[in-house]
Amino acid sequence: MKLSERIIGLNGAPGESDGWGVYYRARAMIEAGETLTMLCIGEHDRKTAPFILDAMDASARGGNTGYALALGQDGLRRAVAERVEAATGVDTTAANVMITTGGQAALFATMCAALDPGDTAVIVDPYYATYPSTVRGAGGVLRTVAARPSKGFQPDASDLSAATEGARALLINTPHNPTGAVYSRATMEGIAAVCRERDLWLISDEVYSGQVHEGAHLSPRALPGMAERTLVVGSMSKSYVMTGFRIGWVIGPEDVIAAMMSLANATTYGVPGFIQDAAEIALRQGAAEEAEVAALYNRRRDRAVAALEGSPVAVSPPDGAMYVMLDIRGTGMSGEAFAMALLERERIAVMPGESFGRAAAGHVRVALTVGDEAMAAALRRLAQFASRLAKAA
Amino acid sequence: MKLSERIIGLNGAPGESDGWGVYYRARAMIEAGETLTMLCIGEHDRKTAPFILDAMDASARGGNTGYALALGQDGLRRAVAERVEAATGVDTTAANVMITTGGQAALFATMCAALDPGDTAVIVDPYYATYPSTVRGAGGVLRTVAARPSKGFQPDASDLSAATEGARALLINTPHNPTGAVYSRATMEGIAAVCRERDLWLISDEVYSGQVHEGAHLSPRALPGMAERTLVVGSMSKSYVMTGFRIGWVIGPEDVIAAMMSLANATTYGVPGFIQDAAEIALRQGAAEEAEVAALYNRRRDRAVAALEGSPVAVSPPDGAMYVMLDIRGTGMSGEAFAMALLERERIAVMPGESFGRAAAGHVRVALTVGDEAMAAALRRLAQFASRLAKAA
Repeated sequence: MKLSERIIGLNGAPGESDGWGVYYRARAMIEAGETLTMLCIGEHDRKTAPFILDAMDASARGGNTGYALALGQDGLRRAVAERVEAATGVDTTAANVMITTGGQAALFATMCAALDPGDTAVIVDPYYATYPSTVRGAGGVLRTVAARPSKGFQPDASDLSAATEGARALLINTPHNPTGAVYSRATMEGIAAVCRERDLWLISDEVYSGQVHEGAHLSPRALPGMAERTLVVGSMSKSYVMTGFRIGWVIGPEDVIAAMMSLANATTYGVPGFIQDAAEIALRQGAAEEAEVAALYNRRRDRAVAALEGSPVAVSPPDGAMYVMLDIRGTGMSGEAFAMALLERERIAVMPGESFGRAAAGHVRVALTVGDEAMAAALRRLAQFASRLAKAA
Repeated sequence: MKLSERIIGLNGAPGESDGWGVYYRARAMIEAGETLTMLCIGEHDRKTAPFILDAMDASARGGNTGYALALGQDGLRRAVAERVEAATGVDTTAANVMITTGGQAALFATMCAALDPGDTAVIVDPYYATYPSTVRGAGGVLRTVAARPSKGFQPDASDLSAATEGARALLINTPHNPTGAVYSRATMEGIAAVCRERDLWLISDEVYSGQVHEGAHLSPRALPGMAERTLVVGSMSKSYVMTGFRIGWVIGPEDVIAAMMSLANATTYGVPGFIQDAAEIALRQGAAEEAEVAALYNRRRDRAVAALEGSPVAVSPPDGAMYVMLDIRGTGMSGEAFAMALLERERIAVMPGESFGRAAAGHVRVALTVGDEAMAAALRRLAQFASRLAKAA
């Protein structure tokens, strides 16, 4: 039986390498019993705080196990709205908030709200791995615009303007995965100007907004004329170590949120109430937990930068998120070839830049998700490995 | 800003009544402090069994709180496969199973797999409330085919054949919500013949398969030539009182399941591991619980039929699910007018047949989801109310 073209084409043209071969190879090696240092994905080594698990259990035993409201529980929607208003200064109420099955369902919902089948969405390369399939899954046409390493991976307004001609939506992400860039005010004002000029929906993925090491996170919803066209994606995954709970949100204009109720019913039929209760407790009582998580990645970032100092892959400290992006072009290898060689010879798994598009080719991404000492030791070995290759190159 | 036509059109043409006014009025009356007997929706009055809550808590505290595999945990996929193989006799392995965010996400995933934007899907009227928006949300074009009250709401093969010309997919549901019909072998063979003749995907919503009061549930996947074109939707919601957990599955050919992995990543990024562990424990150790739930609705069905006996809304006992559909045409009223009058005068909330399409106009659906005595008393009052109206008509 013939599957839909949409499903078949979700990952792009057949045979095109998506750069995930290194990751699958690492998983296979672990299953075969080998010991690796896994610096691949954005999964915390820390565990979810017990007070959050207590809240979930109490809610379920208290009977909050029935169908939840499609847009989310009032209490959690209010808690999210208060936090967003406090962080951005933009008037925000529960009516601006839809609770979703994680940040990913929020991304998918915003694409469905912005695009009709055949409409174009523009994403910034390098990008988070699911962005292309999110656009295609919603029936959209994908276009990419490169953010250059030489500009700290901040996208350029004139590039964006050229790339968004005829498009309906632009998707950005700051603090940025995989590069750790935090978009500057100038970058953000350039983005806002392009969105207003082209009459675009701006989908702003801000799931790392709690993890800013230098400078400040600026939500584009706070810029003039942007609240009406910006759909912000947020999540508990990174800031509260709740990746597996699948709980996130969309912030947008009231009419957009209201219109998305039927989409929520058609795609997931709501988010478990006991998970929403746990998230509300985390937001209202979890300031110390959130600060500890942010401090953890700030400390590891500094350790990582120190471990690489003086090597051919030395880097400036990234401004946000939980990754460090290394330029390995001095070795003469592609990111993919370097990462595969590092895996085979040093038993260290990192992601090739090519996993995130084309603009980060010749780079590898290191996730700061193992203990400090093991991470620093692995990065010292990575630096030595790169030095040997650079001398031979 | 202009929202997508898809989102705006999700509920059909603007101004078209969807029959849900009675439900929203009942919810508003309850919020205003009034006491109603709520026989509206398929939400259990029973609570989730403690052993299932224990399993979820133990899993979360054991650390299963990270990202889950996109298609589901191996253990749960195997448990579902074993159950399906035992119930249907069709070879089924974990590779035929995708775990989803409830039956609703399974419905959405199957529509995305079967349809490209603009393709037609046919649904049987009366239908479960989310079916139209599920088809439209996937970019599909909706067509309905009526199942007649005079035929016990079993769809007719010649009607189906006429309705499916040029379509890509047919969606059926048995045991059936809202009517309680369980499709006979003859009905199912007619459906299968149409699917083979028209080369259709058959999406078979079997979430009530554990609640058959008379006869037997036949999965169309077991019929000749059907396993390759049938996508079965299942769920823990009804059979294990786990509505709010949002856990269900798709059963289909291995290549279809494999292709849906990217869709899972693009829409939900998996189902919480602790919920999957709870579901696996329920499936493997919950036979007594499942039997008790089924027995509860069987007993209430008999009580409901007895309470209505001799009245103008007397019915034959439905064969499955947790509802009774009453023909109120003898009162001279529409289902919507009858339900609204019953709500205002008797403080009893039921769903108009018109909430489920057009074929069940002049009917109301009673959900058997309050305690036996309160339910029987409400139905005796409903019968008297209908008698008075029928005499006046």
